[in-house]
Amino acid sequence: MITPVILAGGSGTRLWPLSRKSYPKQFAAFGGAQSLFQDTVTRLSGAGMGRPVVVTSEAFRFIVTEQLGEIGIPPETVFVEPEGRDTAAAILLAALSLADDPDRLMLVAPSDHAIPDAAAFRAAVDEGAVSAREGRIVTFGIAPDRAETGYGYLELHDAAEDTRARPLVRFVEKPDKARAEEMLATGRYLWNAGIFLMRVGTLLEAFAVHAPDLVEPVQASLDKARPDLGFLRPEAGAWGEVRKVSIDYAIMEKTKDLVVVPFPGKWTDLGDWEAVRITHADADGVAGSGDVTAIDCRDSLLWSEGEGQALVGLGLDNIVAVAMPDAVLVADRSRSQDVKQVVEVLRDREAPQADTFTRDHRPWGWFESLALGPRFQVKRIFVHPGGRLSLQSHVHRAEHWIVVEGSAEVTVGDDVRMVFENQSIYVPQGAVHRLANPGKVGLTLIEVQTGAYLGEDDIIRHEDVYSRS
Amino acid sequence: MITPVILAGGSGTRLWPLSRKSYPKQFAAFGGAQSLFQDTVTRLSGAGMGRPVVVTSEAFRFIVTEQLGEIGIPPETVFVEPEGRDTAAAILLAALSLADDPDRLMLVAPSDHAIPDAAAFRAAVDEGAVSAREGRIVTFGIAPDRAETGYGYLELHDAAEDTRARPLVRFVEKPDKARAEEMLATGRYLWNAGIFLMRVGTLLEAFAVHAPDLVEPVQASLDKARPDLGFLRPEAGAWGEVRKVSIDYAIMEKTKDLVVVPFPGKWTDLGDWEAVRITHADADGVAGSGDVTAIDCRDSLLWSEGEGQALVGLGLDNIVAVAMPDAVLVADRSRSQDVKQVVEVLRDREAPQADTFTRDHRPWGWFESLALGPRFQVKRIFVHPGGRLSLQSHVHRAEHWIVVEGSAEVTVGDDVRMVFENQSIYVPQGAVHRLANPGKVGLTLIEVQTGAYLGEDDIIRHEDVYSRS
Repeated sequence: MITPVILAGGSGTRLWPLSRKSYPKQFAAFGGAQSLFQDTVTRLSGAGMGRPVVVTSEAFRFIVTEQLGEIGIPPETVFVEPEGRDTAAAILLAALSLADDPDRLMLVAPSDHAIPDAAAFRAAVDEGAVSAREGRIVTFGIAPDRAETGYGYLELHDAAEDTRARPLVRFVEKPDKARAEEMLATGRYLWNAGIFLMRVGTLLEAFAVHAPDLVEPVQASLDKARPDLGFLRPEAGAWGEVRKVSIDYAIMEKTKDLVVVPFPGKWTDLGDWEAVRITHADADGVAGSGDVTAIDCRDSLLWSEGEGQALVGLGLDNIVAVAMPDAVLVADRSRSQDVKQVVEVLRDREAPQADTFTRDHRPWGWFESLALGPRFQVKRIFVHPGGRLSLQSHVHRAEHWIVVEGSAEVTVGDDVRMVFENQSIYVPQGAVHRLANPGKVGLTLIEVQTGAYLGEDDIIRHEDVYSRS
Repeated sequence: MITPVILAGGSGTRLWPLSRKSYPKQFAAFGGAQSLFQDTVTRLSGAGMGRPVVVTSEAFRFIVTEQLGEIGIPPETVFVEPEGRDTAAAILLAALSLADDPDRLMLVAPSDHAIPDAAAFRAAVDEGAVSAREGRIVTFGIAPDRAETGYGYLELHDAAEDTRARPLVRFVEKPDKARAEEMLATGRYLWNAGIFLMRVGTLLEAFAVHAPDLVEPVQASLDKARPDLGFLRPEAGAWGEVRKVSIDYAIMEKTKDLVVVPFPGKWTDLGDWEAVRITHADADGVAGSGDVTAIDCRDSLLWSEGEGQALVGLGLDNIVAVAMPDAVLVADRSRSQDVKQVVEVLRDREAPQADTFTRDHRPWGWFESLALGPRFQVKRIFVHPGGRLSLQSHVHRAEHWIVVEGSAEVTVGDDVRMVFENQSIYVPQGAVHRLANPGKVGLTLIEVQTGAYLGEDDIIRHEDVYSRS
C-alpha cells in the first residue's frame, strides 16, 4: 500500500490571471476536465494506493474538500498549515502522522504538475516501489526533451534511457543555456521533478540524521493538532518555530540512500505560461484553449477562460495572451517569468484582480457578481447539497432570491419555508435570514440586491455552522 | 445658416471588436464622454448652425435618435436609406431635401472622424463659408504630421501653412511610403478629409452637370419617401436603381469650382486601431484607455472597454490589444488593416461576436445577457422614459422581473399595475404581457428567465408600437 502525500498549499502568481492567491493554479483546469490537483489525486489513486494525505493552507481548505468531493476520493487527512513553512515541514508532518506504520510507502507529490500519461507514471512508481521497500529514497527524474534552464537536474552515471532505478551522482542547480545544452547532449541528466517515494520509517530516519531540529516542533504541533470540520490543524505556536527549508535542501541533497527512477513520459510543472504553451503547442508553436481563433500566429499562447469570451490573435509572434472575464494579460513570451511583477503592480494599485476572482469560494459553495449598478447588484449563488449559509442580516440592503435550480430552505425572521425552482422570495432590509440547501442536488439562485451600500462587509453573522461569526 | 449633413450609415469592421456591424464605430466613444457621432453633431451645432440632417441605415435608426436625444440636439431629418448606395446618393438625397432654399449652405461630414479642437474647426468652416457663398465647393484639407499612406491627398500650388481658401491643383490617390514622404517634404499637400461645404444650389448644379443620372432616381425616391416614427424612408424601388458611386468620384474630382481650406488642427478618421493608437499615444508610443496597465511597453495600444476588466500589457512592442467582455483582439500592429479578415473568419465560424454585441439595442431601450445557465438566463433591461415593449408572450419560459431603478407599468393578462423600485413581479409561462416605462427617468430591471428553451425567437408579438409585430 502506498499513501499519496499531496502538497497543495502553494499560491504561485506566475500563471496570473488564471492562478491567483485566492485560487492558485493547482485548483485550476488547464484545458482538461479536472484541475491539476484533481488530476494528481486521480493519478495516485486506484489499486495499491491508499487514501491521500493532503497538506494545504487555511485559504484553500474548502477548495480541497470541494474538489476531492467532485472526484469522489475521500482523503485520509487534510492538514491545514497555520502558515507555510516550506516543503520539509509539510512532508515531515505527513510522515509523522503515518509513523505508526513505518513500512508503509509514502509518495510525495506537488499538486501542480501535469503528467498526461498516468499509466506510464504508475509503471515508474511500481519500479520505484521495489527500491523504496529496500530502504531507499526514490526520486523521479524526467527525461528532458529540450535544454530547459528553468528546472534543476539529476546527474546519472549512465544513459537515462534505461528506466530502471539507479543511484544518483548528484543534484545540479538550474543551469544556464550553454550548460543545459551540454547536459542534454550527454543523455545522462534528468529534470528533478520533486516527486519522492520511500518508507515512512526511512524518511523519519533521514530527518533524524539530516534535519533533527525539525522533528521536535513538527511532532509537538501534530500532537496538539485540533480536528475542525474534517480538517486537522497543527498547533500554530510549535509550527511557527519550524525552520523554513525545502525537502531537497534538508534531506535529498544530503542522504546517500537516494536512487533515481527515470520517467520517459511527458511532464511539466506548469511553472509559467511558457511551460503551458510548450505543453499544448501545435506545429506552429501555437497553444490555444477555450474560445480562441489564431490567424497567422507563431510561437504564441492564446488562452480564453471566459464563458462566451472570444479571443482572437492576428499575426502574433512570441506573444502570450490570457483572457478572463475580469482580467486580460498580454505579454511578450520572453517575459513569462515576469508575470509575478504584474501581480505586484496590480497589488500596488489595489486592483482586486491581483489576488481574487469574481467567483468567491465559501465553505457552503460560491457566489459571483454578475452586474453591479448604482444601487443594485446581481449575484449568482451556488450552494452545495447540505450547505448552510450563516444566519445573517444586512443593514443597508434588501435581497430578492429567485431559485433557478434545486431547492432552497429559506429562513426570514421566524418563518422557515422551502422555495422551489422558478419561485422567488424577498428578504427585507434588516431582516435576519438564512439560506440552506437541504436537497441532494446543487442549488443555484439569482440574488438581486438593492440598497445604497452593497459591500460584502455589510453583514452581521448571528450564527454560522462553519465557525466564521 | 449652415445645415450639417451627417453621414452615419457606415458599418466598418476594421475597429472590431469595438466597432461591429450592429453598432459601428461612429456610435462608440473612443476614450471620450460622447460617441464620434455625438462629437460630430456637437461640433457642428451652435451659433450659425441649423439642425442636422442625418443619413443612416435601418439598423442604426434607433441608435441615432437615442444618441441625439442624449445630447439634446433634435435633427431636421433622419433619413433611413433602404440600402447603402455610397456617398454621392446619400449627399444628393440631403441636398434635394433642402432644395427649396438653394442659398442655404450645407456642410457634409462623416460621423466617424475625431477632431479634438472643435473651435479651430469652426474657424476653418467660417473661412470656407465665404467661398461657399461665392458659389465654390469647399473641401477641407488636413495639414499632415507624418507620411501617412492610408489617406488620399489634396495638392496645392503653394505652402499649406496659409489657412486661407485657395484652388485645388488635383486629388492624389493613397500614395506609397516614398511618395508620401516626398509630398510631406514639399509642404504643399494636405490629407483629404472628405468634409465639404457649399450652397445647396451649387451642389445640385454640380450633380446636374457631372452626375445627371443620379438625380432622377434619388428625386423619385425622395418624392415617395414615407415618414415613419420620426424617420423619413426614401422609396426603396427608385433608391435601388441609384448608381453606387462616391462623392469624390461623382463630383469632386470633376468640378472646377473646388477650393481647399487647410485645417491645421489634429484630425483622424480612426480608420483602424493604428489610427486610434496614434491619436492617443504617449511618449513611448503607447495608447491606453480604460482599466489598463502597461509595463515596459512600446508602440502598442491597450484598450479595455469592459466594466471591471483589467487589461495588462507586459513587455509589448508593436502590439494592439483590445478587450471587451465578450471578445478580445490581440494583433501585431502591422496587421491593423487586416482586422476585417478577423471578422470574416468569425462570421465563417458563426461566432455572434463577429457582428453583434451582448448589449442589444431596441427602439424602446436595450438589454444584455448577464448570465446564461442550463435552464435560466439573467438579463439587465433598460427602458427609455416613454418606451413600451411589444405586447408579447413566450411559449417556453417564465420571467421574474425586479425593478432596480425607475418605475415599470406591467401588464400581465388583464392586470395592469405599477411596479416600483425594489419590487418584483412574476410573468408565468404563456401569459400575454407588456413592459412599459411611463416615468420621466430610465427604468432598469433585472429579468430572470426560467425554462427549457430561452432563445430570443420564443416570442409572439401581439401588438407593437414600433411596428415590429
